[in-house]
Amino acid sequence: MGLKPLSDRIIVRRQEAAEKTAGGILLPDNAKNKPQRGVVLAVGPGKTLKNGTCQPLQVKAGDVVLFTAWAGDEFEDRSKSEDILIMHEEDVLAVLE
Amino acid sequence: MGLKPLSDRIIVRRQEAAEKTAGGILLPDNAKNKPQRGVVLAVGPGKTLKNGTCQPLQVKAGDVVLFTAWAGDEFEDRSKSEDILIMHEEDVLAVLE
Amino acid sequence: MGLKPLSDRIIVRRQEAAEKTAGGILLPDNAKNKPQRGVVLAVGPGKTLKNGTCQPLQVKAGDVVLFTAWAGDEFEDRSKSEDILIMHEEDVLAVLE
Amino acid sequence: MGLKPLSDRIIVRRQEAAEKTAGGILLPDNAKNKPQRGVVLAVGPGKTLKNGTCQPLQVKAGDVVLFTAWAGDEFEDRSKSEDILIMHEEDVLAVLE
Amino acid sequence: MGLKPLSDRIIVRRQEAAEKTAGGILLPDNAKNKPQRGVVLAVGPGKTLKNGTCQPLQVKAGDVVLFTAWAGDEFEDRSKSEDILIMHEEDVLAVLE
Amino acid sequence: MGLKPLSDRIIVRRQEAAEKTAGGILLPDNAKNKPQRGVVLAVGPGKTLKNGTCQPLQVKAGDVVLFTAWAGDEFEDRSKSEDILIMHEEDVLAVLE
Amino acid sequence: MGLKPLSDRIIVRRQEAAEKTAGGILLPDNAKNKPQRGVVLAVGPGKTLKNGTCQPLQVKAGDVVLFTAWAGDEFEDRSKSEDILIMHEEDVLAVLE
Repeated sequence: MGLKPLSDRIIVRRQEAAEKTAGGILLPDNAKNKPQRGVVLAVGPGKTLKNGTCQPLQVKAGDVVLFTAWAGDEFEDRSKSEDILIMHEEDVLAVLE
Repeated sequence: MGLKPLSDRIIVRRQEAAEKTAGGILLPDNAKNKPQRGVVLAVGPGKTLKNGTCQPLQVKAGDVVLFTAWAGDEFEDRSKSEDILIMHEEDVLAVLE
Repeated sequence: MGLKPLSDRIIVRRQEAAEKTAGGILLPDNAKNKPQRGVVLAVGPGKTLKNGTCQPLQVKAGDVVLFTAWAGDEFEDRSKSEDILIMHEEDVLAVLE
Repeated sequence: MGLKPLSDRIIVRRQEAAEKTAGGILLPDNAKNKPQRGVVLAVGPGKTLKNGTCQPLQVKAGDVVLFTAWAGDEFEDRSKSEDILIMHEEDVLAVLE
Repeated sequence: MGLKPLSDRIIVRRQEAAEKTAGGILLPDNAKNKPQRGVVLAVGPGKTLKNGTCQPLQVKAGDVVLFTAWAGDEFEDRSKSEDILIMHEEDVLAVLE
Repeated sequence: MGLKPLSDRIIVRRQEAAEKTAGGILLPDNAKNKPQRGVVLAVGPGKTLKNGTCQPLQVKAGDVVLFTAWAGDEFEDRSKSEDILIMHEEDVLAVLE
Repeated sequence: MGLKPLSDRIIVRRQEAAEKTAGGILLPDNAKNKPQRGVVLAVGPGKTLKNGTCQPLQVKAGDVVLFTAWAGDEFEDRSKSEDILIMHEEDVLAVLE
């Protein structure tokens, strides 16, 4: 990917929920919203706490996640027609297993 | 369910208060609101405190809960016509017993 | 009651100030507001502090309390035509004695 | 009085500044405001600090105080045509001596 | 004066900058504003810190101060046609020497 | 450069994403926004923590960074037709590698 | 100057960027804004921390600084047609060297 997130940020590729998964087909209540679901591409080293230690993240690259509607800054990768989001880990709601 | 909430989040299936329970029939004051009541489907591991320990949650899967009107991000499970909410535990008002 | 409030929340039944009490007849300044007075029905275990201990509440079931105008989430118990409020203890202004 | 304020709250009866006092006749700059002055009727036990101790209040029953324009929740004692305010001690600006 | 400010509050009499002082004639940029300058009449004992000690104030009675445009609650002393402000010390910008 | 940022601030020259890089061509979702990408020109010494130590920054001069849409104060260097941003490090989303 | 700033405040005289300096000619992006650049005339003793010690400032009198667009309270020194700003040190973006 070549993109290294800072602190407690993660990079997520937005994903259409095109097929039924173990978690069922969960869609945002408002059909006009974009899907709040994606694959984690990269994670930061974690937030540096006030005592200087680093709190590692709970999600990892490859996880499929649900996230809040207002999560992250959005970028468009024109070479692949993909939506890329860079968000804080606290905007992740749940991991699909 | 296949959905693992992060941190202090819980997953709740919104529930119509169709029958009288031990807690009486409690409805939101404004009849146009959706029911603020549901069944807990899954709970996260708890919030990580600043000293690195994890504060476990008070509610557990199976609890019937009342929650605030603005609680959570809402998703729709189309395969079952159900409303799924992912909220912080602090949006839970009370547990029905 | 069958409703167990979480953390520092309490359950209050809104009460008309129909008769003169020791505390006089105190009404909200704006007559269009609902009465900011009620009976405590149940109290939570208290707020969990950052060091893990639990801070017990100061009010108890049976107390008659005055509370702020914006206190709590409101529910209606249709079986009894009662207004039920679930609020944080910090929304309680004073206890009538 | 029969009203016991919680935590760091105090109960104040709003008072017209009808006669010249030691502190001069201080009126709110905007004449349309209600007087920001009153007599303390009762005080709470003080705020409970994070270490569990209780910080007692600086004002006491009987003090004449000036307070902010937005101080407190207002109630009307219909039996006496009095305005009663329940406010945090931090809304008190100064004590008249 | 007969007015004792609480905590970290100070009492200031607004003052026209009628004559050139050591600090030059400093006027608010917007000529329609009232002068942001005055004489300190009384100071509170200081803010009580979380460990229970009291942080004394840096300004003292008699100091001529510049303060923010939104500083304080304003009162009018009708016997002297004076503007009296009760503000937090942190609204004081600088002391004229 | 001759500009020394204070605390946890960094100086960034906004950069058009004119050529494909290892990180792909990432553009803000809204084409009307300016590019949220640039080269770090200088970094501050880091934020001074409450215990008096200084937390050094994670980015360094020469890094190519993505940043939030609302990052920083913008200046224009007229001699070079360049956009210069001075932002907090926490407005940096990721570093391109 | 005769003006002693309190706490972590500094006094700055706004300065036109009339000639090219080592830092280039940096102007606010919006030409209608006033220059966000000036000379430090005086600095306060620093912020008093919660443990009672005083954190000295990083900028000093004589420094030429860039600051945020919304920095400080503005005063006009009519004797010299100068704009004087009193701001917190955290509104300073960078020092020109």
